[in-house]
Amino acid sequence: MLSTMQDVPLTVSRILTHGSTVHGRAKVVTWTGGEPQERSFAEVGARAAQLAHALRDELGVRPQEPVATLAWNNAEHLEAYLAIPAAGAVLHTLNLRLPPAQLAWIVNHAADRVVIANGTLIPLLAPLLPHLKSVEHVVVAGVGDRTPLEGLGVRVHEYEELIAGRPETYDWPEIDEREAAALCYTSGTTGDPKGVLYSHRSVYLHCMQVNSAESFGLTPADLALPVVPMFHVNAWGLPHAAFMAGASLLMPDRFLQPAPLADMIEQLRPTISGAVPTIWQGLLAELDAKPRDTSSLSRVIIGGSACPPALMKAFDERHGIRLVHAWGMTETSPLGTVCYAPPGVDGEEEFAYRLTQGRFAASVEARLVGPDGTVQPWDGAAAGELEVRGPWIAGAYYGGAQGEPFRPEDKFSEDGWLRTGDVGTITADGFLTLTDRAKDVIKSGGEWISSVELENELMAHPQVAEAAVVAVPDPKWDERPLAAVVPVAGAELDFEELRAFLGERIAKWQLPERWTLIEAVPKTSVGKFDKKALRKSYADGELTVVTL
Amino acid sequence: MLSTMQDVPLTVSRILTHGSTVHGRAKVVTWTGGEPQERSFAEVGARAAQLAHALRDELGVRPQEPVATLAWNNAEHLEAYLAIPAAGAVLHTLNLRLPPAQLAWIVNHAADRVVIANGTLIPLLAPLLPHLKSVEHVVVAGVGDRTPLEGLGVRVHEYEELIAGRPETYDWPEIDEREAAALCYTSGTTGDPKGVLYSHRSVYLHCMQVNSAESFGLTPADLALPVVPMFHVNAWGLPHAAFMAGASLLMPDRFLQPAPLADMIEQLRPTISGAVPTIWQGLLAELDAKPRDTSSLSRVIIGGSACPPALMKAFDERHGIRLVHAWGMTETSPLGTVCYAPPGVDGEEEFAYRLTQGRFAASVEARLVGPDGTVQPWDGAAAGELEVRGPWIAGAYYGGAQGEPFRPEDKFSEDGWLRTGDVGTITADGFLTLTDRAKDVIKSGGEWISSVELENELMAHPQVAEAAVVAVPDPKWDERPLAAVVPVAGAELDFEELRAFLGERIAKWQLPERWTLIEAVPKTSVGKFDKKALRKSYADGELTVVTL
Repeated sequence: MLSTMQDVPLTVSRILTHGSTVHGRAKVVTWTGGEPQERSFAEVGARAAQLAHALRDELGVRPQEPVATLAWNNAEHLEAYLAIPAAGAVLHTLNLRLPPAQLAWIVNHAADRVVIANGTLIPLLAPLLPHLKSVEHVVVAGVGDRTPLEGLGVRVHEYEELIAGRPETYDWPEIDEREAAALCYTSGTTGDPKGVLYSHRSVYLHCMQVNSAESFGLTPADLALPVVPMFHVNAWGLPHAAFMAGASLLMPDRFLQPAPLADMIEQLRPTISGAVPTIWQGLLAELDAKPRDTSSLSRVIIGGSACPPALMKAFDERHGIRLVHAWGMTETSPLGTVCYAPPGVDGEEEFAYRLTQGRFAASVEARLVGPDGTVQPWDGAAAGELEVRGPWIAGAYYGGAQGEPFRPEDKFSEDGWLRTGDVGTITADGFLTLTDRAKDVIKSGGEWISSVELENELMAHPQVAEAAVVAVPDPKWDERPLAAVVPVAGAELDFEELRAFLGERIAKWQLPERWTLIEAVPKTSVGKFDKKALRKSYADGELTVVTL
Repeated sequence: MLSTMQDVPLTVSRILTHGSTVHGRAKVVTWTGGEPQERSFAEVGARAAQLAHALRDELGVRPQEPVATLAWNNAEHLEAYLAIPAAGAVLHTLNLRLPPAQLAWIVNHAADRVVIANGTLIPLLAPLLPHLKSVEHVVVAGVGDRTPLEGLGVRVHEYEELIAGRPETYDWPEIDEREAAALCYTSGTTGDPKGVLYSHRSVYLHCMQVNSAESFGLTPADLALPVVPMFHVNAWGLPHAAFMAGASLLMPDRFLQPAPLADMIEQLRPTISGAVPTIWQGLLAELDAKPRDTSSLSRVIIGGSACPPALMKAFDERHGIRLVHAWGMTETSPLGTVCYAPPGVDGEEEFAYRLTQGRFAASVEARLVGPDGTVQPWDGAAAGELEVRGPWIAGAYYGGAQGEPFRPEDKFSEDGWLRTGDVGTITADGFLTLTDRAKDVIKSGGEWISSVELENELMAHPQVAEAAVVAVPDPKWDERPLAAVVPVAGAELDFEELRAFLGERIAKWQLPERWTLIEAVPKTSVGKFDKKALRKSYADGELTVVTL
């Protein structure tokens, strides 16, 4: 029997129409450093329609063509977020934090013809433009000196002039929900960037899940502060999800420093926010130094990397702000897990739950694939690489030379699941704990040893300032851990004692035999441990290694 | 550009798998009158797999075949809710409150071969069986005398025996999300019942919306008490949605009387419930007479018909229970609107908002079509028939003689929207107020007069016990209102004075000219005003009418 339900596609235009009518009085407030700019969802909807007319009629944007944005979180970027996909084009957000050469590679690969940019980002864009072969139009929104764009061979448009006077409604096309809506490139540490090409369907379903009470649970009573940039995995879906739920938005624009963030929280009273741990670390120091009223924040989503327990505790105890762990990646839209402890637990037990990555969102299927390629049980002990499947999970990259989809073997399983590259465990009640990146895990005799767990235990020793553990080749076990330790200033380290210290906390077969003293752990440009460099130093014989 | 996201269908099997793994420790508690029966989601999932094996291997159920249930809200019904669609068959819930002849018509129309019934409903089922031509198997679950089923020419199976020993996992088929998952018949007052054939897609998306924080917002911290029967529009989606969200369920089975409902609320502490106003009216009287601790209930969804303001107020003031208005119908799965007042309003203003039907759920598009066929503005004044569109709204009925879809003109617009038959207004901030059924509205000179509004104003007069207003033919205006009034015992009614009373509250052109005194308003079998009977009495000249 065929169902007799209406066949209505899930498209961004439906989010736009719903938000700007049913929730037309919700607000988008953009921080400016001075008087905040305020716009209603109805106004944003009308301006999005004007932008869509301008893109089509003035700049000749065609269906499924990418339109790039180089912008902070603000009302104009939200208008582009809605107008570009709703009109049938593809929203391509450019990550302004990437090295210029990588940014240029990405724009050229996507063949962007139109870039919507904030005036304050012209110092970044102008020197890049001579390298952007496809760009014909730059649309500039907001304050900032325009003169650096002169004479660079592109047509420069003022955003406000471009949209002014155009119709405030648009006959949004009824699009196949599997067509592309948005494009984000991931910047791997190796190889060229790879595009993730979201569909209308994936964006829409992801929004619905973001708005579920068990995830971020946005409602019209919320004022959501996306600190996570709109050029980073669509700001975790918050802008579209807020528009769908009728939750007002507080946009920080370029004011991502601790002091203005603390000020906007106190003055405008957001109820929910989302950002990476580094931001909250900075905010904590700011609030400790100069307390503000942050009582409006009922929940703060933390993702991008694991939240240090001390940070979570400090916000709990000193500022009454509840940090909620979530896990995801560009390839997962990003909502994969959100962490709320199960009902009925409290105290230290609850805190231990809160340090996990949490439970999988409905629609996200998960499995752990162990060292021998078999699916591992959910028992909180068996470790494996996390693989996920679902309607907002990437099934391939957009990124071949001709823009064709491609599926590298290390990223996708044979049966189409995404290989996340994260290693961890899952408990019987569905809580995920990530322990390592798959490439950093130590494969010893068919079992996995977590480098991160060893590092954490080592760094708990009072004489250890920093410690990195990497896999080194071993004739008998394939790989064994090498512990590279940095002592605290003035301390004398005794490896025998450190090994005994570890022995009280870690299974015996996981204890490193190889130890080395180093002055500092080598770091990558974003401050992560550079284990590749350490492995190379070992291979090149540059380290003095003691074997116990 | 084609999106590169995974193409994963939205199916009931995904709800089943997610709930019974990630939320395997959530509970289904069924009230029995004695010790409550308790089962985990993991157990329900395993038993659903066993049921699916039994249906396929023992009873020969084939893909897309309807399997009927005649059952109360309990764990076994939930298992059928999950197993039947997940295995690719169609869950056909039978409304045990329908007249037996209508029930028989429905079973014969759907050609149900298998009925899963509660033992306590055998007294209803047995006398019906000789009229059910297609039924071959009856599967009986729970307590109740089986003997009436003997010798009726069907094979009778014990539910527990049927599923015992079968595998606890099932290789659920990957189904096209547009295939049928569930079937409910609506029982109009005229004509044969009409089937609404839900798809996997519509059930899944509806669950996601039910779980959004702005709708019912189920989470693992909830214990949901669906008082609305599972044979009535899938219990508003609560069973499937709870399984998706990991919210535990409290199932009242056949104990829908005020006293056991009050007892189970006090003893088992549900956090959310849903039912029609009549149930809450009965519960209010019970709680007033014998107070219970109902403090666990944070929200109670009320739908099916409008909530009397006095009922809402009484629960607010005397029991601290917040009734939340929602609107929907079988054809809308049913979630159409939910009513939460906008942030920042309180007191009488908030209460006025709460009496409206609320705002449209995301994904539900709405328009009001006025008397002249044009779409009306959302200004809180212009009235029209409500038409809706969306992925969980019916686009046709399942119901022709050969089961083919059919689209009666009075139920579906030319462009495919559902005509709800409800007349109302929508405010600029998206709040729907329903005032009338379209068939009861008075079409006077190209304008609409709400019969319900006139009735409410008349009944506010101290001398009026009841009042019904119906349309009667008028040579000049097409239709005009006739006011039929029942005086309070011993009162003398003065029509001139009543008309003046109305005149202070209602636009002059809406005031009735025709008045009649009646002893009681005729009622339908479910207690609604029978306006058809009243119109007929007028047409037949049975009423003494005074014209002012």
